[in-house]
Amino acid sequence: MSGPHGALVLLPVALGDTSWQRFLPGEAQQRACAIAHFVVENAKTARAELKRIGHPLPLREMDIQVLPERDDAASLDALLAPARAGHDVGLMSEAGCPAVADPGARLVARAHALGIPVRPLVGPSSILLALMASGLNGQSFAFNGYLPVPDAERTTRIRQLEDESRRLARTQIFIETPYRNERLFDALLATCRPDTRLCVARDLTTDEEWIASRTVRAWRGEPKPELARRPALFLILAG
Amino acid sequence: MSGPHGALVLLPVALGDTSWQRFLPGEAQQRACAIAHFVVENAKTARAELKRIGHPLPLREMDIQVLPERDDAASLDALLAPARAGHDVGLMSEAGCPAVADPGARLVARAHALGIPVRPLVGPSSILLALMASGLNGQSFAFNGYLPVPDAERTTRIRQLEDESRRLARTQIFIETPYRNERLFDALLATCRPDTRLCVARDLTTDEEWIASRTVRAWRGEPKPELARRPALFLILAG
Repeated sequence: MSGPHGALVLLPVALGDTSWQRFLPGEAQQRACAIAHFVVENAKTARAELKRIGHPLPLREMDIQVLPERDDAASLDALLAPARAGHDVGLMSEAGCPAVADPGARLVARAHALGIPVRPLVGPSSILLALMASGLNGQSFAFNGYLPVPDAERTTRIRQLEDESRRLARTQIFIETPYRNERLFDALLATCRPDTRLCVARDLTTDEEWIASRTVRAWRGEPKPELARRPALFLILAG
Repeated sequence: MSGPHGALVLLPVALGDTSWQRFLPGEAQQRACAIAHFVVENAKTARAELKRIGHPLPLREMDIQVLPERDDAASLDALLAPARAGHDVGLMSEAGCPAVADPGARLVARAHALGIPVRPLVGPSSILLALMASGLNGQSFAFNGYLPVPDAERTTRIRQLEDESRRLARTQIFIETPYRNERLFDALLATCRPDTRLCVARDLTTDEEWIASRTVRAWRGEPKPELARRPALFLILAG
């Protein structure tokens, strides 16, 4: 609790099947274990995560609400009612940090509007880990979410991102649905200029973690990485 | 160690004066405590951080090298020599995550070029914590570093960022040298449109943490936050 209101506590979640000691500070785990009210992207992964961190309450005694698709002010207020009654509410997405490349921002915005303190906890973000490890520009970067799926549109978008990267010396970060990773990788190799640098970061924080950062020219001469159905991020910086 | 080479281990550092259990996972602390070779942005803060996390080696037995301003390949190779000899090398910036809004990316890039594994550890990033807690768009965002100092140029840049934010629904993140925070805050209130949302996140992860997210219109009707000489991030999302 923080003052008369409880807080909306932003709880990062595992990126893969690892123990919490790898990705969550001890104080964050303790804070999460003291919460009984949760708003989550997915109830099943949230229950698994609460078990992973050793939450002491039996699941049936926890209040686990799923973030609605259509989040009007009234439904957000209902989700935040425990905070207004003095209890902390934990927000969790399916993986990584809530409200970053994941739902939850509208609940956070509503908490600010209601004067409920918002407390972000330290935890794993695949975007940030990939950026750190890329060796690309960390002074200027943009996260662009998903690229278009149709080939022609995706190629156009890759060219746009590469042009902007060159003009602004900006690292461009994007993601793909895991089963489309290989198609995106092929499109990057076919589209980008040879001296553009491309980092691929796969299975971050897990024992399968694999990160490589090379020019497109060098990638073209290498065996293709195993990317099918594995969570990966893609980062480019034009030369 | 990872294979024949040691790894370049990216070690996040405290954002303020807190115990490591607040911001570092236990496994990251253990990994850091097993390293004897460090490359750091600032030797004094690095020594303080190694003491904070309870590194078991006496400081005089650790090899602590400072990242050079001019980092040609030869000097980077010298810094990475311990990794080529099979020892992990820890990279630390003054605060937060190395190579993100901080030096180190060229060393990381050189490690990739030499085939040295790069291992990012989970830790605090003020950029990511502020974004999570802002309630602004976490599906599309850009980190823009510092804005220009002269008033006219800063105003022009704020307008540019706000226009781009509106066009792309993109959250714009930027920072300022702490003693100029109040001037930047005033410039944002004077320049941005009333319905642009502005989040200010100060002293993240510390007991003084303070995060507020409001429209510019609402900020104009509030007492000014205390921002002088305190680390803060600024985020806008145009309406």
